[in-house]
Amino acid sequence: MSVYVIGTGHTKFGKLPKSLYELIVEAGKEALEDSHIKPSQIGCIFVANYDAGGFNNQGHLGPIALEIDPDLRFKPTMKIESACASGSAGIWAANAAIESKQIDFAMVIGVEKMTSLSTKDITKVLATGSYWPSEGAQGVTFPGLFAEYAKGYQAHYGFSDDQRKLMFAKVSAKNHKNAILNPLAQMPLDISFEDILNTPDEKNPIIADPLRLYDCSLITDGAAAVVLTNYDNAKAIKDELVEIAALESATDYLSMSKRSNYEFTAGKVAVQKAYEKAKVNVEDLDFAEVHDCFTIAEILAYEALGITKDGEGYKALEEGIVYKDGKLPINLSGGLKAKGHPVGATGVSMAVIATRQLTGKALGYQLKSPEIGLTFNIGGSAASNFAGIFKRVR
Amino acid sequence: MSVYVIGTGHTKFGKLPKSLYELIVEAGKEALEDSHIKPSQIGCIFVANYDAGGFNNQGHLGPIALEIDPDLRFKPTMKIESACASGSAGIWAANAAIESKQIDFAMVIGVEKMTSLSTKDITKVLATGSYWPSEGAQGVTFPGLFAEYAKGYQAHYGFSDDQRKLMFAKVSAKNHKNAILNPLAQMPLDISFEDILNTPDEKNPIIADPLRLYDCSLITDGAAAVVLTNYDNAKAIKDELVEIAALESATDYLSMSKRSNYEFTAGKVAVQKAYEKAKVNVEDLDFAEVHDCFTIAEILAYEALGITKDGEGYKALEEGIVYKDGKLPINLSGGLKAKGHPVGATGVSMAVIATRQLTGKALGYQLKSPEIGLTFNIGGSAASNFAGIFKRVR
Repeated sequence: MSVYVIGTGHTKFGKLPKSLYELIVEAGKEALEDSHIKPSQIGCIFVANYDAGGFNNQGHLGPIALEIDPDLRFKPTMKIESACASGSAGIWAANAAIESKQIDFAMVIGVEKMTSLSTKDITKVLATGSYWPSEGAQGVTFPGLFAEYAKGYQAHYGFSDDQRKLMFAKVSAKNHKNAILNPLAQMPLDISFEDILNTPDEKNPIIADPLRLYDCSLITDGAAAVVLTNYDNAKAIKDELVEIAALESATDYLSMSKRSNYEFTAGKVAVQKAYEKAKVNVEDLDFAEVHDCFTIAEILAYEALGITKDGEGYKALEEGIVYKDGKLPINLSGGLKAKGHPVGATGVSMAVIATRQLTGKALGYQLKSPEIGLTFNIGGSAASNFAGIFKRVR
Repeated sequence: MSVYVIGTGHTKFGKLPKSLYELIVEAGKEALEDSHIKPSQIGCIFVANYDAGGFNNQGHLGPIALEIDPDLRFKPTMKIESACASGSAGIWAANAAIESKQIDFAMVIGVEKMTSLSTKDITKVLATGSYWPSEGAQGVTFPGLFAEYAKGYQAHYGFSDDQRKLMFAKVSAKNHKNAILNPLAQMPLDISFEDILNTPDEKNPIIADPLRLYDCSLITDGAAAVVLTNYDNAKAIKDELVEIAALESATDYLSMSKRSNYEFTAGKVAVQKAYEKAKVNVEDLDFAEVHDCFTIAEILAYEALGITKDGEGYKALEEGIVYKDGKLPINLSGGLKAKGHPVGATGVSMAVIATRQLTGKALGYQLKSPEIGLTFNIGGSAASNFAGIFKRVR
């Protein structure tokens, strides 16, 4: 049995004059309206969020979702959290609830309202997603953890500094440019990789050596929502169906010291499980939205997906594979780097983008008749990993 | 299809010299060993927790569960949160995953390590479980919110102050006494309701008028865990089966101003749904573990369960129904009042206690051949509500 996406909602991503509560309601209402079902038909609402307690003093987000519509009162709700993979974890839990036949329709709302704190405090809240005793408590931040990947990857494969800078700049420029076609994106920029490489250090400062500002994703407010159901209901309601053909997960130890620093070990496990479940391989994919929280993460994602061999992720850029007109466009939306990264919303945003792409509603970045898309969403320094395969079904 | 509990784990509850990480591992290991399955057979681990980010600077608890056993590496994990009902929400999500047939075995670990902060800071973290803009941000605490229930209930039914004090003291004394027989409980006390009523004000101070110290549950470190599976697996592994015949949920608005202050409106919905699903009624119950976060909450729980009519909860005490030797013993474990209330663990603790009671392993508080038990677990000021029916199956 599979689960189908019959409704999507997605706020603008950015520094928004909207509260946590308004973001939840806006995305939820849009997804419900798009689904063509009545709110009373919803069986359970899953709110995916990293830490509204830390960002907004508001835990216990499940009940907040009732504000979307009066007919949602008394529905089961819960919050799901897997750091920056919370959105995918929420969809995973919702899929299970539908497949269990306990409910017919589920709504998943991913949300994060991050910009209400100072950058320092935001960094502190996010650091609780690392293994606190040996990482966060020692002053290690997420840029610092992904800098370990950048250094580990460079050392393991023997890249020069210039080679590293080049591949990172290409990822960054590609995603900023892609965002120009996504009206919901936070930071569209018409910039080339040469522009980034030539940016003076004071305008592209080191965040955590060797990662610079242009290597880092954004601090973002935003929400995204999906309405999910089984095949029979989806078929009765919609002409064009989007199947979640797989959503597989694999977890690794939270502490980076316990795992490889040059690959997404558990991420690869999740992707392989998803390919097997959906009976597809990387050649079948028409697009993917991957977790480019830092430029190094997108390179590692290319390898986790099997777009290139290990250590050859840069070739996906050199050969043009992952660009807009390439064989497998990656992060057409702009990705976390330029679309924005409201951490708890990101996994749901990926699902919304995949669904819209497959149903011809991807706005400026619409591909011609895509059939299969992949989402790759990680939490922490890739301790939580989710890979989704979305298929158009006619 | 139903889900069965085949393993339980439960740490001592109290102010413990153990870290969040140690609590997760201790409860998880015990449940796994009790289940007689291999760790590699676990399909997904759900960590139920309110706010380890706020209490311990540690979000992203899913991956922490891998520390229980090396063979859990790469398993899917996620954290589930519904404030003080997080534990029941975690079991709800795990039930769905098993019923979906995507996994055979699930582990749910509920945990909270609360005593590392000052009482003031603990109260602040907990207040994020209320509707922050109009409650927490205005200085309203959980004792304050349940004081609203106490005042609303007294006013609605016209009780005198002495009547109110008497019923609250009876709940408190009963649960402290029950805890004497539970070696895992935090605050066993051989105390009578007269003792409580005669306690001088300085030793039983007002926490939020009219609630006093003896009306409030405890600040607690602790964890509890269950291993769940389907009927066929349970039957193959265990001689005595415990079925989760129902685990139903209903959510109400987070802000108390939007709902009744003299009953658990959505709690009643959850209980009725659970009775219908499990095809039982209140007369069939042999025991119940209910959410006595404050003494008023246990009175409202009697009415939500239908032990008495609305406004007559006190009769359950007067007539001896809810005492150890009564027709329907409530909180034999000591309840949140005396067993302790590590908030994210509480729902899982209730499931563990119900399972042990039904399999003859309830230690000092074992009943003679109980067949059916109920758990009633609420989050926030009863915005999240879960009612479970646990049945012995032979």
